[in-house]
Amino acid sequence: LDAADAPCAGKSEIHITGSLYRKEDMLKLANLSDILTFEIEHISMEGLKAVESSGKRVVPSSKTLEIIQDKGTQKQFYQSHQIPTTDFRLAADTSNWATLLDELEIEQQFVIKTRTGGYDGKGVEIAHRANLPLLLEKYINTPVVLEKPVDFTTELSVIVARDLEGNMQVYEPCEMVFDPVLNLVDTLVTPARISPKLSQLSKDLAVKTVSALEDAGIYAVEQFLTADGQLLVNETAPRPHNSGHHTIESCYSSQYDQLNRILFGWPLGNPSQKMPAAMINIIGPEGCHGTYRLSEASALLAIPGVYVHLYGKAETRPGRKLGHITILSEDMSKLEQLIQQVKSLVKII
Amino acid sequence: LDAADAPCAGKSEIHITGSLYRKEDMLKLANLSDILTFEIEHISMEGLKAVESSGKRVVPSSKTLEIIQDKGTQKQFYQSHQIPTTDFRLAADTSNWATLLDELEIEQQFVIKTRTGGYDGKGVEIAHRANLPLLLEKYINTPVVLEKPVDFTTELSVIVARDLEGNMQVYEPCEMVFDPVLNLVDTLVTPARISPKLSQLSKDLAVKTVSALEDAGIYAVEQFLTADGQLLVNETAPRPHNSGHHTIESCYSSQYDQLNRILFGWPLGNPSQKMPAAMINIIGPEGCHGTYRLSEASALLAIPGVYVHLYGKAETRPGRKLGHITILSEDMSKLEQLIQQVKSLVKII
Repeated sequence: LDAADAPCAGKSEIHITGSLYRKEDMLKLANLSDILTFEIEHISMEGLKAVESSGKRVVPSSKTLEIIQDKGTQKQFYQSHQIPTTDFRLAADTSNWATLLDELEIEQQFVIKTRTGGYDGKGVEIAHRANLPLLLEKYINTPVVLEKPVDFTTELSVIVARDLEGNMQVYEPCEMVFDPVLNLVDTLVTPARISPKLSQLSKDLAVKTVSALEDAGIYAVEQFLTADGQLLVNETAPRPHNSGHHTIESCYSSQYDQLNRILFGWPLGNPSQKMPAAMINIIGPEGCHGTYRLSEASALLAIPGVYVHLYGKAETRPGRKLGHITILSEDMSKLEQLIQQVKSLVKII
Repeated sequence: LDAADAPCAGKSEIHITGSLYRKEDMLKLANLSDILTFEIEHISMEGLKAVESSGKRVVPSSKTLEIIQDKGTQKQFYQSHQIPTTDFRLAADTSNWATLLDELEIEQQFVIKTRTGGYDGKGVEIAHRANLPLLLEKYINTPVVLEKPVDFTTELSVIVARDLEGNMQVYEPCEMVFDPVLNLVDTLVTPARISPKLSQLSKDLAVKTVSALEDAGIYAVEQFLTADGQLLVNETAPRPHNSGHHTIESCYSSQYDQLNRILFGWPLGNPSQKMPAAMINIIGPEGCHGTYRLSEASALLAIPGVYVHLYGKAETRPGRKLGHITILSEDMSKLEQLIQQVKSLVKII
């Protein structure tokens, strides 16, 4: 941990270097704070509870993070609240995988998610039953969620803001396009190119999910739209999310503005979208390590409606999120052209 | 000068406390910088030239600031470049005021501007010839510009960005509504409620003015639209301007984004406006000194399309700019309603 290198180091009046896995460091931050939030789920639960016991409010609370941090508990939460989700079984170890896969009627492909520690596509594997012997070895003592894959046409994400009093505001559904190689979100288009009816159902499902959590915060409720028109919740992130980055430029009130409002106890902002937006992640390419630059930055900055965000991370690594680009256009077909133009210019060297 | 109190103190990695009137302090900043800019005209010209002599580029340059800092020189500049402006005379002292006022055919009202040191309405006086004896005493040794008042219907401001290579981008004209009591801009509406033809002429005049300066930077070219439809340049500010604050939310690229682009040598951004905007200054009220708060902040934040900016100044003083509020609306008549609603809620206590 190098404080001088941290992108946030120069942006705040007080900067603490510490680990989100060390209770002592978390308490040190809490002592300086009136209210706290987090932007990553993988933090020490013991530390978070110690912060709350010290009398400081954390938004969202440890209760919510406990549900979300463990993908098995999260699945059970959806089930117990009648929130549609993909069929699944929990396995503490691999001893009964065969039975569980049978129960899920899986003959070929299935999804394995480690219950804890996954992030940005890590900890998620699309597996094939034919490879079962190897998989049983790999996951021998790892608690996992086994999921039946769904035939989905679109992956959606809906940002919901919930304030300390329980008021909610919901954003337009975002359509997430994954890069199958990196297993990372590649391009996002908001509003999603789905019918108004489905859009409303997707927003309703997101609100239902956040209502069930009964906690303040910014949430991204990721959903599958299946080939037969069903919406299933995949997972929920209890923090500002990649699928909400476009809100900085495209909405009256961004996901970050909403989070500020929530923490300060101010009224929620207006989530309406001013115009359609696309977002492209800037990701560290394969085989590229160390210092880097965005080689076509100048050409990108010259395109009207294009916003380049670089996070100021000191070094690139393959698959690392280095920044993102937001594109605005009043016209959806023009937006699609701009996406292609921008994608051809995003090069990290 | 108290560094800890400065609004910018916690926002930058390096913060220097110094005076813009002391050459030594300006050189200290220059030594740490690759390129410099300023956000106030009233800085030491000797210091600025010393910075340039040290080999550091300042945007805009001392040459431009020299023209603008002295309102007399600025007037002569307009005159020599055939840029329409109000009739004026320069007076080194009051000895020949009567002759100059006669030349301007002034019998009653006229405008007195001190050549240097004026800011935000200070240094500008609307005077009456009947009070001449008193005025001659007040301005006895002060070099001033005497101006013939114009019968204007609207005051406009046009922001122009000019990069290091001479490329320019121009924003929509902003309509400035002055508070006659504070002699400060009160409400601004952009685009100005004038005909498309006048709007284009106003933009052309702003571009002509900045072209004549032949220098990079962000400029606000303030103009009078006279009762008989003429556009006259009143004055030019060589920096991000109050009349461009709305661009943060209403335009693809804000005046601040443009200035960054200029300083970094990036292509200029898109000045197009996403939707109509109004801006209201938050000004320290009469009789109110010391710490303060915006009493109806919560009600203001609850209005969709309203953005509250407080500059973090530690203390209020009568007439001091403490912040501003931007209002966005797709519909101009709704925008006008929102202006009234917001104005009724802006209270500093």
